[in-house]
Amino acid sequence: MILADLPTPCLVLDRSVLKRNIRSMAGVLSRHHLPLRPHMKTAKSIDVARLAIDGQPGGITVSTLAEAEYFAAHGLTDILYAVAITPQKLDQIAKLAETGARVIVVTDDLDVASAIARHPHPPRALIEVDSGEARSGVEPHGDLLLALAERLGPNLAGVMTHAGHSYAARGVAAIAAVAEAERAAAVTAAERLRAAGYPAPIVSIGSSPTALHAENLSGVTEVRAGVYMFGDLFQAQIETHALDGIAMTVLTSVIGRRPGQLVVDAGGLALSKDRSTENAPHDYGYGLALDLAGRRSLGDAIVRRAYQEHGVIALDPAHPIDLPVGSKLRIAPNHTCMTAAAHDRYYVTDGDDEVVAVWRRVNGW
Amino acid sequence: MILADLPTPCLVLDRSVLKRNIRSMAGVLSRHHLPLRPHMKTAKSIDVARLAIDGQPGGITVSTLAEAEYFAAHGLTDILYAVAITPQKLDQIAKLAETGARVIVVTDDLDVASAIARHPHPPRALIEVDSGEARSGVEPHGDLLLALAERLGPNLAGVMTHAGHSYAARGVAAIAAVAEAERAAAVTAAERLRAAGYPAPIVSIGSSPTALHAENLSGVTEVRAGVYMFGDLFQAQIETHALDGIAMTVLTSVIGRRPGQLVVDAGGLALSKDRSTENAPHDYGYGLALDLAGRRSLGDAIVRRAYQEHGVIALDPAHPIDLPVGSKLRIAPNHTCMTAAAHDRYYVTDGDDEVVAVWRRVNGW
Repeated sequence: MILADLPTPCLVLDRSVLKRNIRSMAGVLSRHHLPLRPHMKTAKSIDVARLAIDGQPGGITVSTLAEAEYFAAHGLTDILYAVAITPQKLDQIAKLAETGARVIVVTDDLDVASAIARHPHPPRALIEVDSGEARSGVEPHGDLLLALAERLGPNLAGVMTHAGHSYAARGVAAIAAVAEAERAAAVTAAERLRAAGYPAPIVSIGSSPTALHAENLSGVTEVRAGVYMFGDLFQAQIETHALDGIAMTVLTSVIGRRPGQLVVDAGGLALSKDRSTENAPHDYGYGLALDLAGRRSLGDAIVRRAYQEHGVIALDPAHPIDLPVGSKLRIAPNHTCMTAAAHDRYYVTDGDDEVVAVWRRVNGW
Repeated sequence: MILADLPTPCLVLDRSVLKRNIRSMAGVLSRHHLPLRPHMKTAKSIDVARLAIDGQPGGITVSTLAEAEYFAAHGLTDILYAVAITPQKLDQIAKLAETGARVIVVTDDLDVASAIARHPHPPRALIEVDSGEARSGVEPHGDLLLALAERLGPNLAGVMTHAGHSYAARGVAAIAAVAEAERAAAVTAAERLRAAGYPAPIVSIGSSPTALHAENLSGVTEVRAGVYMFGDLFQAQIETHALDGIAMTVLTSVIGRRPGQLVVDAGGLALSKDRSTENAPHDYGYGLALDLAGRRSLGDAIVRRAYQEHGVIALDPAHPIDLPVGSKLRIAPNHTCMTAAAHDRYYVTDGDDEVVAVWRRVNGW
């Protein structure tokens, strides 16, 4: 099977780029002597997970309980569920434990900490710390941190934070500064816990940009990152990888043509309505069109309008092209996590046009 | 089962509101003596389709071939695939025909018209006409219209247009003007075809706003519309329905709390990153939070930030609330077609908190 024969729209995953991205992240972290707990929220695929944990301890991060169940069923049992837990979800975690999966949960809430401690089969828990994103997590210097530790009791396993505001940083120096804030928040919290007599064996930080550009990670015990595996137009612009580091694209067919414009069968569902690059240096609309080989031979051919199943590409005046209806293109995504989510499988290549595998995804909740 | 016991995030579909929306659209079109060919791109569910075709001829519209296969397998065989066809997809249409499904395709391209005519099992085809959206379709007054008819030969079944630019209109009078442009484009094209000796039995128009607010639909033979069934915050603002006409919401759990802010487990995947209301009179961010009963008791509690699995609700200062982690809320969506697409099922109620059915969706391509 070759790319030109695939039904569209669909996802194409270039395994050679994927492997290079994974090697690159592993190399960076090995210089810090730190293990990676890859975040599977982007790929949601056991085949990708096996590549990402190669040479690592084998723990993973997930963003849904559906992912936790799927990866546990495929033998990956050391799982950090990195979205704050609710009391109602603890039974599902306990059921996973019966199958041998050790799911670590996250909380920043006193009532939830009590619910964990009271549960007949409590999971291990990390206290979520806010390192500047102002989304979730406790102040590393505050009293709540110690109160949570007290409530969690023997279930306390350490701390975690996510410097998601690294996505707003521009330039390597700015990202390195966010990375230091992320490290400092987590390590400060862990040291305060230990000083008060609580255990904190796990000090978990991470986002792809901070993982790659941190200068000092002392005191950290593991790093979480996910989007680096596939990359996207936004990550390329904030220097997580080069533009040729985008491993996943959307294969699409031309379904209409006008002067200066192509209509394709990848719209808001196949690409997502994510507009991450809107405030990045270069606004790629809903994605950048590449040729079938994945080369940037069309210049700035950008998906400027995205309807449910129609994408409208504004052609680059410097690259006037005309393609018959049925011609295939590939679209590099703004935000690969969101784009992948509408699709149930990857068509895998090794950089050329031959489809060497089909890998399934676990979507939903 | 009651709503409070459901895993989150998930979709809640209020069947009583759905039925009211369906009755309302059918009533409007019956005054025009016109049948509805409901567009199933929003609901993607046979259970919803059966309600939507009740009292209608039974034809439906779809946006993907996956929908066509699914609905055909459930016995709905009169299907308009309203996204421009490519030559490569004709074999799949022919396979559907073998099972008894009569899929009508759409084109605005001469090469595709030739490919249809040359196919051993050609489908019936409509010529797509542009009524002002500038996405797809030929000029109703141009030569290409007649050239397409010549190429399609006996496969020509008429014309269709979609005035998607009705979404940019504000106010009933402005939408009525777009509706008249939509009608005029389609009817002009059909009359030109007939005058040249070609058949045009089908004159198909539609979008939910134009279907509801058109003053005159003479010459039209059928109307397509989909989003009216479920409604959303955007459609409410352009007066397709009242704010209480939103039948589908996202059930979510509170996973974090801070002064002025709640974090919920419905983020960019569960809600979509669609920002339709950004330029509407009222900007609802990524959705409007309602209480568990679906009432607007929280004021303007709006999802202002949407991460992959985290939604951050900025609370309305006039409605200060504090809810424990695990509490459930419902989020009214910006754009229901996009929001529904991440979910594989609806939990159906009849307006109270009892789940009376679970209806599946057909996602993907």
